[in-house]
Amino acid sequence: MHHIAWLTTGGTIACQQDQQGLTPRLDGRQLRALLGSLIDQYEIEIMDLFALDSSNIQPEEWQRIAGQIANLVQKGKVDGVLLTHGTDTMAYTAAALSFMLENVPFPVVLTGSQLPLNHPLSDGPENIRTALAMAASGKPGVYIAFNRTIMLGTRAVKVRTTHFQAFESVNEKNAGWIDSRGLNIRESVLPSLHGSFRLRPQLCQNVVLIKLIPGMDPRLFDALMQMKVQGVVIEAFGIGGLSFVRRDLSAKLRQMTEQGITVVVCSQCLYEPSDFSVYEVGQKVLRYGVLEGKDMTSEAAVTKLMWVLGQTSDPVEIRALFERSLVGERSSESD
Amino acid sequence: MHHIAWLTTGGTIACQQDQQGLTPRLDGRQLRALLGSLIDQYEIEIMDLFALDSSNIQPEEWQRIAGQIANLVQKGKVDGVLLTHGTDTMAYTAAALSFMLENVPFPVVLTGSQLPLNHPLSDGPENIRTALAMAASGKPGVYIAFNRTIMLGTRAVKVRTTHFQAFESVNEKNAGWIDSRGLNIRESVLPSLHGSFRLRPQLCQNVVLIKLIPGMDPRLFDALMQMKVQGVVIEAFGIGGLSFVRRDLSAKLRQMTEQGITVVVCSQCLYEPSDFSVYEVGQKVLRYGVLEGKDMTSEAAVTKLMWVLGQTSDPVEIRALFERSLVGERSSESD
Repeated sequence: MHHIAWLTTGGTIACQQDQQGLTPRLDGRQLRALLGSLIDQYEIEIMDLFALDSSNIQPEEWQRIAGQIANLVQKGKVDGVLLTHGTDTMAYTAAALSFMLENVPFPVVLTGSQLPLNHPLSDGPENIRTALAMAASGKPGVYIAFNRTIMLGTRAVKVRTTHFQAFESVNEKNAGWIDSRGLNIRESVLPSLHGSFRLRPQLCQNVVLIKLIPGMDPRLFDALMQMKVQGVVIEAFGIGGLSFVRRDLSAKLRQMTEQGITVVVCSQCLYEPSDFSVYEVGQKVLRYGVLEGKDMTSEAAVTKLMWVLGQTSDPVEIRALFERSLVGERSSESD
Repeated sequence: MHHIAWLTTGGTIACQQDQQGLTPRLDGRQLRALLGSLIDQYEIEIMDLFALDSSNIQPEEWQRIAGQIANLVQKGKVDGVLLTHGTDTMAYTAAALSFMLENVPFPVVLTGSQLPLNHPLSDGPENIRTALAMAASGKPGVYIAFNRTIMLGTRAVKVRTTHFQAFESVNEKNAGWIDSRGLNIRESVLPSLHGSFRLRPQLCQNVVLIKLIPGMDPRLFDALMQMKVQGVVIEAFGIGGLSFVRRDLSAKLRQMTEQGITVVVCSQCLYEPSDFSVYEVGQKVLRYGVLEGKDMTSEAAVTKLMWVLGQTSDPVEIRALFERSLVGERSSESD
């Protein structure tokens, strides 16, 4: 029998309806009880971490979760981790944990639901069963299990607010799926281990995301410089566009890089890589030393930037770490 | 023979490759010549407006384009408008024109291409032919034609950086498509006229878009208040989440609304509506008087907010205008 640690953090799956709307009140024991014999195939150890709506799960929570999982690695008694979590920021948490838990030796599988587990039509039972199967699979890495599919933690994006197919694996195939054969794994997508486990929890929290709009006031970047941010991820237009006529954003990018701020440019298009070398303005900002997100999701780019800036302040090391695919978060063919 | 005005603005479709990358250099006459007899079925009048990469097309350009189209309406000699435009910000321009050209009496169809028109594999010829068919269809409204589909101008989003299916119609069906029957129109999607044409070009340019990330520093909102922005669109998490533990963004939203800033909340999920009434924190910010984007795209929410704030500064009128679907940009069933 596989031994799985179930870490709870709250989320819709643990919600009860009251006058204030949905609030996460059910603990792991209550969630476990709701599932009856459906998951008797696993030996489950429950650890309640928080009871938070995932909009409140922030870098501090990522660090607590990562620390807890590092303890489990050291004890060496579990085959995998099930982490129930709200869907709203699940993709950010999964990406962050992917970087923080270097060479995690077992599967860490995040899941949640669009309807509370105590709702008669909840997607929670199916999601937990899928996640448990993946957690018991012996395939190391951080994953999201949702609607009978498994996605790499660094590739998942929440794309739908209500449908049970809430997540998509963006710019990478699903890592697995459920059908009449049970759990199928796509081995080519799985991250590979490069050494022994190491908890690397340091994060720079001084990172912002800016999604451009036409006419964006360049003074917004002045404000970021005054706030002394250390990293900025910019969702530019299309394959790599930003305004330089009248509102010269490229000049602001130059100023920011000169002040030692790490600037990452990516696309606001959901799918496919950015490539700033195609158009003139993109080539120019690349010369200023900005980094490219390429085919990383914004969720992965933001959390990776926080993590990289938590590891080093040396610009050469920052670039080297950021541009290398560490856990499958960016495709080498897009470089 | 249908009489179509072809307004050019630059974009990839008009690009030539040189050492600086792709730059829009071809004017309308050159573009027309590249198409030979393929579009002889239309009587085309060419008007070159700009030669810009669409990352440089900003509210000032929207106003010039809208003014030009208003002239064409007054002269009463054209059956429709073809507007070639870069793909990067085409969805923003289409949405903005949808609001600025109230009750436009003919089709205004934006298109462009992912490969320059002079490339032997360009998608430009197909896109222009689709756009011309729609421009000659007699169906009033602002549309994007791309990859043999027609989308409402307020529903299109650029979702792919390289594929020819660059745009999707989000939260609304396509308004039309091409098959062996020629151009098919889905009448139920088309906007309806509510009176006579009126150019309403006023825009508030003092609007910003903020896409939340976990751990976002609430001081960013202080900076916006110091910049005296008039409108903020916030892409929150999931169906309507934002942090209130430790980093209390809801308090900042309250402060902004108290200072008379119009705050719109929507979802960073690409598909499906936001609904801030589901969770406690969402209910709270709704009580502060923020407006909801519901199933509007971010492109439509941002341009509509610019436009609404250009029409009125009365909070009651702002809400009434913003919450009503004017040209199909939001579904009534999502309200």
